[in-house]
Amino acid sequence: MAASAGPEIERLIALLSKLPGLGPRSARRAALALLKRREQLLQPLAEALAVASERVKTCSTCGSLDTQDPCAICDDRSRDPTLVCVVEEVGALWAMERASAFRGRYHVLGGLLSALDGVGPEALRVNSLVTRAMEEGVTEVILALPATVDGQTTAHYLAERLSNAHVSVTMLARGVPVGGELDWLDDGTIAQAMRARRPA
Amino acid sequence: MAASAGPEIERLIALLSKLPGLGPRSARRAALALLKRREQLLQPLAEALAVASERVKTCSTCGSLDTQDPCAICDDRSRDPTLVCVVEEVGALWAMERASAFRGRYHVLGGLLSALDGVGPEALRVNSLVTRAMEEGVTEVILALPATVDGQTTAHYLAERLSNAHVSVTMLARGVPVGGELDWLDDGTIAQAMRARRPA
Repeated sequence: MAASAGPEIERLIALLSKLPGLGPRSARRAALALLKRREQLLQPLAEALAVASERVKTCSTCGSLDTQDPCAICDDRSRDPTLVCVVEEVGALWAMERASAFRGRYHVLGGLLSALDGVGPEALRVNSLVTRAMEEGVTEVILALPATVDGQTTAHYLAERLSNAHVSVTMLARGVPVGGELDWLDDGTIAQAMRARRPA
Repeated sequence: MAASAGPEIERLIALLSKLPGLGPRSARRAALALLKRREQLLQPLAEALAVASERVKTCSTCGSLDTQDPCAICDDRSRDPTLVCVVEEVGALWAMERASAFRGRYHVLGGLLSALDGVGPEALRVNSLVTRAMEEGVTEVILALPATVDGQTTAHYLAERLSNAHVSVTMLARGVPVGGELDWLDDGTIAQAMRARRPA
C-alpha cells in the first residue's frame, strides 16, 4: 500500500486482504467501497462483525456455528435423530442445507486427517462422533466428506472407528454431477460413475 | 443462504457479499474464515472498520481520504505545489502513489462525466479544480484519467474548462504497457503507440 492512505486505512486493507477470495488489489477496492458507503455498508458491517463476535458460538453437540447452543438444527425436534451426517466444516453443512436433501442432524469434524499437514484424529471431533453414534439411538452415520485423498482416508478411519457402534456407515454416491458434461469431467469421476452405473 | 446459519451470520454474509470482488459463495467463505479466527481477524476487522468509520474523512482540498484534513499529501510541504494531477477516484490516486512517479498534489474528481449514467459536471469536483488551477500558483494540470470513452470525454471537458486558467493541461502518455506483448494488446493501443512513436 501507498503511504498516502494513512495507517487506519492501511490496517483496514491489510485485514480485508486476509479474507479468502480477496487479494491486495481487491482488498483496496473493498476498503474504498466501504469508505464511500459508510451508512449503508461500513457501519452495518462493523456492527454485524461485533454482533457475530459476541454472539456466535460453536454448538457443543455437533460443532456447527450458531447463536444458540445447542444449535437450531440440533434443537429442531422435527429433524430425524437417527441420522447423523458427518461433514468436514461448517461450510459443507451449509451446502448440505442449501441442497435440502437431508433432514437429520450433523457432526462437524473440524477438518480432515492429513499425514502431510500433521492432522491426527485427536485434532478432530472424532471421539464425540463415536460417543454420539453409540449413545443417542443413532442408526446411520453418513460420511459426507470430500472426494479427495484426505477425505477418503478420513472416511475409512471413521468407518473403522464406528465399526463397534452398531450403526450403518454410508457415504455420498459418486458420479456425474448435475449438468456435468462428460467432456469436462475428470477420468476418475467417469470411471466411478461407470462402476456405480444403475438401471436407467 | 441456508436458514441453518442463523440471522446474525446471514446478515454478515449479506453485507460481505456487497463488497466488490465477493459474491455470495466467497462471502460465505469469508464469514466462516472470520468466525474461525475471531481474535486474529474478526475482532480486529470490526475495530478497524469502526476506527475508519469514525476517523477517515474527505480532504476538503483534493477530495482524497485521510484521517486529517487537509490530507497528508496536500499537507506535505516537500511536494511540488505547482503540479496538480487529476484522478477519477481515490483508488487511482493510490495507484499513482504506488508508482512513485509524481511528487505534486492531486485532485480527486469523484467520477467521470457520463451521458449514459447521467453524470454531469455538477456531480464532480470540477469547480474546485478550476478554482485551484487559478488561485494557487499552479502551472500544470495533469489529467490522469482512464483511457475510456468517459475518461476522454471528461478530459476534453476539463481541458476546455481550464483554458482560461493559464496553466498547461497535459495527459498521461498512451502506449504499450510495461511487459506488454503486442500479441495481447488491443488494436487501439497498438495504433496509439505507433502514432506516438519516438526515437529509440
